[in-house]
Amino acid sequence: MTELRTLKVALLGCGNVGAQVARILLEDADTLAARTGARLQLSGIAVRNVNAKRDVELPQELFTTDAETLVKDADLVIELMGGIEPARTLILSALSNGACVVTGNKALLAQDGPTLYEEADKAGVQLSYEAAVAGAIPILRPIRDSLSGDRITRVLGIVNGTTNFILDQMDTTGAQFADALAEAQRLGYAEADPTADVEGHDAAAKAAILATLSFHTRFALENVHCEGITSVTAADIAAAKDAGFVIKLLAIAEKLVDSDGGEGVSVRVHPTLLPREHPLAAVRGAFNAVFIEAENAGELMFYGQGAGGTPTASAVLGDLVSAARRVVLGGPQRTETTTGHIPALPIEAATTSYYIGLDVADQPGVLARIAQLFAEHGVSIETMRQTIHTDAGSNRESAELRIVTHRASEAALAATVEAVKGLDVINSVTSVLRVEGV
Amino acid sequence: MTELRTLKVALLGCGNVGAQVARILLEDADTLAARTGARLQLSGIAVRNVNAKRDVELPQELFTTDAETLVKDADLVIELMGGIEPARTLILSALSNGACVVTGNKALLAQDGPTLYEEADKAGVQLSYEAAVAGAIPILRPIRDSLSGDRITRVLGIVNGTTNFILDQMDTTGAQFADALAEAQRLGYAEADPTADVEGHDAAAKAAILATLSFHTRFALENVHCEGITSVTAADIAAAKDAGFVIKLLAIAEKLVDSDGGEGVSVRVHPTLLPREHPLAAVRGAFNAVFIEAENAGELMFYGQGAGGTPTASAVLGDLVSAARRVVLGGPQRTETTTGHIPALPIEAATTSYYIGLDVADQPGVLARIAQLFAEHGVSIETMRQTIHTDAGSNRESAELRIVTHRASEAALAATVEAVKGLDVINSVTSVLRVEGV
Repeated sequence: MTELRTLKVALLGCGNVGAQVARILLEDADTLAARTGARLQLSGIAVRNVNAKRDVELPQELFTTDAETLVKDADLVIELMGGIEPARTLILSALSNGACVVTGNKALLAQDGPTLYEEADKAGVQLSYEAAVAGAIPILRPIRDSLSGDRITRVLGIVNGTTNFILDQMDTTGAQFADALAEAQRLGYAEADPTADVEGHDAAAKAAILATLSFHTRFALENVHCEGITSVTAADIAAAKDAGFVIKLLAIAEKLVDSDGGEGVSVRVHPTLLPREHPLAAVRGAFNAVFIEAENAGELMFYGQGAGGTPTASAVLGDLVSAARRVVLGGPQRTETTTGHIPALPIEAATTSYYIGLDVADQPGVLARIAQLFAEHGVSIETMRQTIHTDAGSNRESAELRIVTHRASEAALAATVEAVKGLDVINSVTSVLRVEGV
Repeated sequence: MTELRTLKVALLGCGNVGAQVARILLEDADTLAARTGARLQLSGIAVRNVNAKRDVELPQELFTTDAETLVKDADLVIELMGGIEPARTLILSALSNGACVVTGNKALLAQDGPTLYEEADKAGVQLSYEAAVAGAIPILRPIRDSLSGDRITRVLGIVNGTTNFILDQMDTTGAQFADALAEAQRLGYAEADPTADVEGHDAAAKAAILATLSFHTRFALENVHCEGITSVTAADIAAAKDAGFVIKLLAIAEKLVDSDGGEGVSVRVHPTLLPREHPLAAVRGAFNAVFIEAENAGELMFYGQGAGGTPTASAVLGDLVSAARRVVLGGPQRTETTTGHIPALPIEAATTSYYIGLDVADQPGVLARIAQLFAEHGVSIETMRQTIHTDAGSNRESAELRIVTHRASEAALAATVEAVKGLDVINSVTSVLRVEGV
């Protein structure tokens, strides 16, 4: 073991994940050396405040505020600061110095990935970022390598634990969104400012990364249509449950072929109904899972913990060991292949099934008129189910109508809903939600 | 594209999987070239009979019976003949010629993997075999690379679709083993001679491969304790179901630490009770899944199609593209790291929970005597449940007793069962089955 080469590892950031990465690098040094063929020496940890309280006790002499100097002297750089700057500048500096970089920075990758990939390829070093999507779950490497001889057609991911926890709570307890969010905050599953999670921004960044790798074409955050879960009500959940569905916030990337044979990719994040027997429907609490459909492999699912310091550290270290092995072996390295050039499609081009809840007058001929309106707009109905309510107070009778359509475009559906609203027999449109997995 | 280098690919074997691999190599040539940076030219297909009928129509001129010559001239060799010889000799010949090899030959890997790995490392070329375990599911690469910075503690795999289909049929329809097997044979999920599947031999080879990669230590077939599903009865399934369990044939590899801190790995295949809410319990029909527990990552599951020509071809082509990318990049390659040296443990050292069904006399004090006997043998009872049957004909009353134990060693359990059999109040021991996931 004394003959082993030493590789200097610079760690940028020491939050939840960074602290665990540092701990494992120190505690498991011998195991990591045996697996890589080099000693991975943690040369320093760049932080804003060297005296801040950490989750893990670490040697004080490792901390520094001088990230630039630390990066210049490193063979391998782990970036876990988050945010765009100074992370971006530090990563580019590391790559151009010939260091391999491991990052979990989904926001930066979704916003400016191509610049980073190009710098890595130019320098002939690896840039890896397994931790950026779905925490501990090995998903990016399987897409990039294991499925490299296949054609992915669709990716459906539960990639945000906070929203999955909230929706699961709502589904299990019947709680409203605000109460489930408060519970998630109390248990540490949601931050004090939950915007990035509940508005879908976090999932959207991951959707862009998944789409880029799955379709060998670069997709940026602005290509992702994004809807969060703040408008999902307890009534939506109850109605979905009653109809055999569960509501999940899905990151979706799917290849669509138009009638002229032109290909495009729809990348989007929105609350989605899934049949209860779909493998993703069983993903509970703060867990993550990614469901992939590929032409040859068929259906695959990857399941595990999507967040948390220690689980995410596992993904960071997997990337680090893989990069170190390549450094030890020598020879050129390559990060990415973008060999496809499929256009990103606007949300209007996406087609899904829809669930539509309507509060309608209970009078003869209503169903026929609604069905006809759907048909006129080219939206085909799969199931239609009516429940009659009698309001004892007003003695008014109304009916609740639940429609699940076949796949239709956003545009056709929107036009249909507009037209339905104009019918005099419609009291209100109570919900319009997308459905996948049917 | 005209500037691209050409890599010659030799295909050995043209069965179910091989025919699909050949089809995809020909049909998707441009996509594969874009992804690898080289044209993958199928230079020939070695078969026993060049005129045999194939699943897929392929150019007749590709077929040859001269595998040796084909291999000598290839940059990449795909071995899908199965069996030990001539596959072993051809793979060794390819590796020593400097060709990367992709194989799905689990029997050969489980029996003689170390010889192959050593030859690959000596030649500085890749030997990959994702298709050997769980068909289309990317599982070996995630274990080898993504989890390379973590410590796997346990692997539970449903890695044989035939037995999962049979057990699922028995669970769903209440059928006996023989009838479920006949149905599996009728539907093409089981072969005419189902021995390798139903006796667990196929799963045992996969268990050895999974254990080797997970624990960085070489485990061979003789280290795997193997029990098949032929003795699982409809009554076992019904009793398990009633108690909230499902029976699965699991390939298990787990690290155990004895009281002196000594580490060992228990590798085994046997019918196992799983709680119905365990993620593996939902794996139905001929699907496969591998559940992994790692120190940092926590619980992970990988799910997909475990067999079939086209899905398995996806795994073969993923390996092929990855190997071709390395050849194009240049530089040394490495196949395997066995850095651990953990001993394989005999089945007697394994500890699991057990489910024990007993037919007992319905008389006072029986439960206490049985409980005491378990305690004397150091086997702790988790739950004990009694159901009384009255046989109207004989007017004899008997009771069915179902016991689930805490984790106990095979040895302690066997001694307990022997002792229980000796009690005069015991009519019979109706089942003894292992339980995981509780």
